[in-house]
Amino acid sequence: MGIESLPRTLELVREGSSRPVLRFIDQTKLPLELVVEETHDWQRVVEAIKRLEIRGAPAIGLAGAAALVLAAEEVPSSQNSAILLDHLSIRAGAITAARPTAVNLSWAVDQVMDAAQHIVTTTTESESIKEELYCTVKKMEQEDEAVNRAMGEKGATLLEGKNTVLTHCNAGSLATGFYGTALGVIYTAYAQGKIARVFVDETRPVAQGARLSAWELARVGIPSTLICDDVPASLMRAGKIDAIFVGADRIVGNGDIINKIGTYNLAIAAKYHHVPFYVVAPTSTMDLDTKSGDEVVIEERDRAEVTSVALDGVEIYNPAFDITPFDLVSALVTEKGIYTACDELR
Amino acid sequence: MGIESLPRTLELVREGSSRPVLRFIDQTKLPLELVVEETHDWQRVVEAIKRLEIRGAPAIGLAGAAALVLAAEEVPSSQNSAILLDHLSIRAGAITAARPTAVNLSWAVDQVMDAAQHIVTTTTESESIKEELYCTVKKMEQEDEAVNRAMGEKGATLLEGKNTVLTHCNAGSLATGFYGTALGVIYTAYAQGKIARVFVDETRPVAQGARLSAWELARVGIPSTLICDDVPASLMRAGKIDAIFVGADRIVGNGDIINKIGTYNLAIAAKYHHVPFYVVAPTSTMDLDTKSGDEVVIEERDRAEVTSVALDGVEIYNPAFDITPFDLVSALVTEKGIYTACDELR
Repeated sequence: MGIESLPRTLELVREGSSRPVLRFIDQTKLPLELVVEETHDWQRVVEAIKRLEIRGAPAIGLAGAAALVLAAEEVPSSQNSAILLDHLSIRAGAITAARPTAVNLSWAVDQVMDAAQHIVTTTTESESIKEELYCTVKKMEQEDEAVNRAMGEKGATLLEGKNTVLTHCNAGSLATGFYGTALGVIYTAYAQGKIARVFVDETRPVAQGARLSAWELARVGIPSTLICDDVPASLMRAGKIDAIFVGADRIVGNGDIINKIGTYNLAIAAKYHHVPFYVVAPTSTMDLDTKSGDEVVIEERDRAEVTSVALDGVEIYNPAFDITPFDLVSALVTEKGIYTACDELR
Repeated sequence: MGIESLPRTLELVREGSSRPVLRFIDQTKLPLELVVEETHDWQRVVEAIKRLEIRGAPAIGLAGAAALVLAAEEVPSSQNSAILLDHLSIRAGAITAARPTAVNLSWAVDQVMDAAQHIVTTTTESESIKEELYCTVKKMEQEDEAVNRAMGEKGATLLEGKNTVLTHCNAGSLATGFYGTALGVIYTAYAQGKIARVFVDETRPVAQGARLSAWELARVGIPSTLICDDVPASLMRAGKIDAIFVGADRIVGNGDIINKIGTYNLAIAAKYHHVPFYVVAPTSTMDLDTKSGDEVVIEERDRAEVTSVALDGVEIYNPAFDITPFDLVSALVTEKGIYTACDELR
């Protein structure tokens, strides 16, 4: 019970002088099994991101950053720093391409590449560079948790009294290194006595709500109720939802929120019922240079996620994300503050 | 291909002088297998309704009516008509209780009971009474199809040009004896060249959209696209839905539409995007003596429909229906006409 019951989602580790490895929970196996994988192969990390073993915008960011550290190990110590940088730059492209929509992935990869560019100005010794890169990613892991806890504190101030809240998909500890974004706010608010119950919608087709958020809430010991994605509107009509908290995969210049498919639908229902709709995301999710959500590639995933049945003439359309305009968002919580109007984001 | 490719959903049959049987498609086996069951046992019919082998408001009405004809066969010919009536009256209660929300079930059972009351004033001979009851139900089957085709004609007038439409759950031929309600309108409109494509949402947890509507549309040969329940709002935002057609399980005095969970959610999204939202249901679905949807028992179904995973502290809430106020409905289509304001219903 308690937030301490949650295992770390992923962690770059190195024991003694051995090569670093990435340890990560295979989220496709939850909630039936808690399986921790371990790899020193950056391509295995890319595969894990593609297969949704690792998912959630901040978590895939950290995984992408760690993958670069693993990729650096492919370069022999005898090679010079220019070759190492070239190698990393090529790998960075492959890692970033693993999933197109969440901006945290390219943000985190860019962070590591920027660090690498800086490091080579201070040392040309490959082993030292690798060591520095490792430390860079370890620092990113710590910052991720600190940022999540800061969002938890800020977001919890949005609630008063005892609340029944709703969350969509998994913007929990599993979507980050530890603690979570939208669920992080709920964890902090629960510790403050402000949460009575959490409704979790299943979030078809991959069921991150049913499989991951429900598992986290059970582990932390917060009373929760699992519902199908079609149920929230009628719960709102019955006055049973006090607030909604969701995460984000990308927030662009005009305030459009790109997040798990179904977010937009929930935001409309929330507006219709005057239920506060809060988005919780670190500033690493922001991509203010992109003007509007319409410019973002919305990933379409495999039809097999929806059904294994093939019928003549029946197509499948399986977008992973949708776009919610900022005017449907009551407030955006980042580690820096609470924003209630899109123009405050800049 | 074509509407003729659809098998009858259920049919009361009697070959020669043998006992009548109800033939019905086991809808839990679709779309993988088309299995036609046959029974002369009214309790088997009740079980089929409870297990959703037979579902859809008009179809369970016809099944309930047929179950009474089967129940009449339990009474030996030597018994007098008063005993037969008593017997039917007790069975009628058990049949009506099979599912609480759709009013067509009690409507159809009442129709047969009223017929029985009338028949016993014209004959006291048990075999003649049974024969008349059989004919009553056969007439109801014919009327069901005629009513559906009439709604198809009326509803199709709501469309002009070539349309991409959305439907929820299965208000198709499988939800009736033949032809369907909401899908019936789509079948008629398609024959008139007015339908380009039908989006079908999966309709969790039982997936009547993915399993039944998609199967029907494939069989009839209408291009369709299967989506998860979270997708329609973003399709509407993209201007890809011209109109929405759904069925109804009960329509009450204030115009509240009780229909498959998710209908209310869709109606809100339709209103937000100014997409016409049409309800198609025969007058047998109307229960104008009940004032408001809040007085109707909303059936909650088994948690196993949602998930087989049990997690400590995680409850499941699985309502089968929701309530859509008439002000979200652009028009209601019945066999009698098209209604655009709730007060026209009376």
